[in-house]
Amino acid sequence: MEKQPKLQIIGVLHGDISNREDAPKNYSESERVGSLEIYPEYEEALDGIVSGQTIVVLFWLHQAARDILKVHPRGDMSKELRGVFATRSPARPNPIAISELRVLAIQGNHLEVLGLDILDGTPIVDIKKKIG
Amino acid sequence: MEKQPKLQIIGVLHGDISNREDAPKNYSESERVGSLEIYPEYEEALDGIVSGQTIVVLFWLHQAARDILKVHPRGDMSKELRGVFATRSPARPNPIAISELRVLAIQGNHLEVLGLDILDGTPIVDIKKKIG
Repeated sequence: MEKQPKLQIIGVLHGDISNREDAPKNYSESERVGSLEIYPEYEEALDGIVSGQTIVVLFWLHQAARDILKVHPRGDMSKELRGVFATRSPARPNPIAISELRVLAIQGNHLEVLGLDILDGTPIVDIKKKIG
Repeated sequence: MEKQPKLQIIGVLHGDISNREDAPKNYSESERVGSLEIYPEYEEALDGIVSGQTIVVLFWLHQAARDILKVHPRGDMSKELRGVFATRSPARPNPIAISELRVLAIQGNHLEVLGLDILDGTPIVDIKKKIG
């Protein structure tokens, strides 16, 4: 196995969140709408996704720190430091974020989605069906 | 941004599932127990995880095909081909699996977990708190 597998960026998020202070804490608390642009070479892999369904989207948080192992939960300095694996902090060795998003509309290789907590311009690495 | 970000492998799964035919369809249908070995250099990031909690674990499915964009759902050839992003197929451009696992016990850098649907020896790339 490769020691450091390489990710393929499959698309990019277009949204209206431009800084972390403005971002909802997580997708379950968000009513933000945006668009997932999937690059044409991967469009075929969208076949079967329908409006109204909830999808699981994995983003690559390209601006996040990868060398931090402990954080103050939600940036609250009054809280004790905690290991990043016990949190949802963007900072972590592999800054992959998971969002559950509702599909509002599909137009070719663009999915309009609801529930965003991710910054505009963030790369997308995977989409999955939600279980259950 | 890097065109192809590199993942750091943070640990490895020890379990008793050695082939796909023997694997539960997904974590929600599994009562398999195993152990997440987190490499010592990342052990600090586990601080705050407690027995009894459910964690979200991201695995790198190193044996999965990365060049397949359509599959027969659950390998059932009688079903129509569907885009991998509309499924939970291991085959996909970035073969990252998401499992929600219950922590049974913690011993240093080893987490004993319940709910496995992943093959023995699979690399681990991230652990997160479950939302909600």
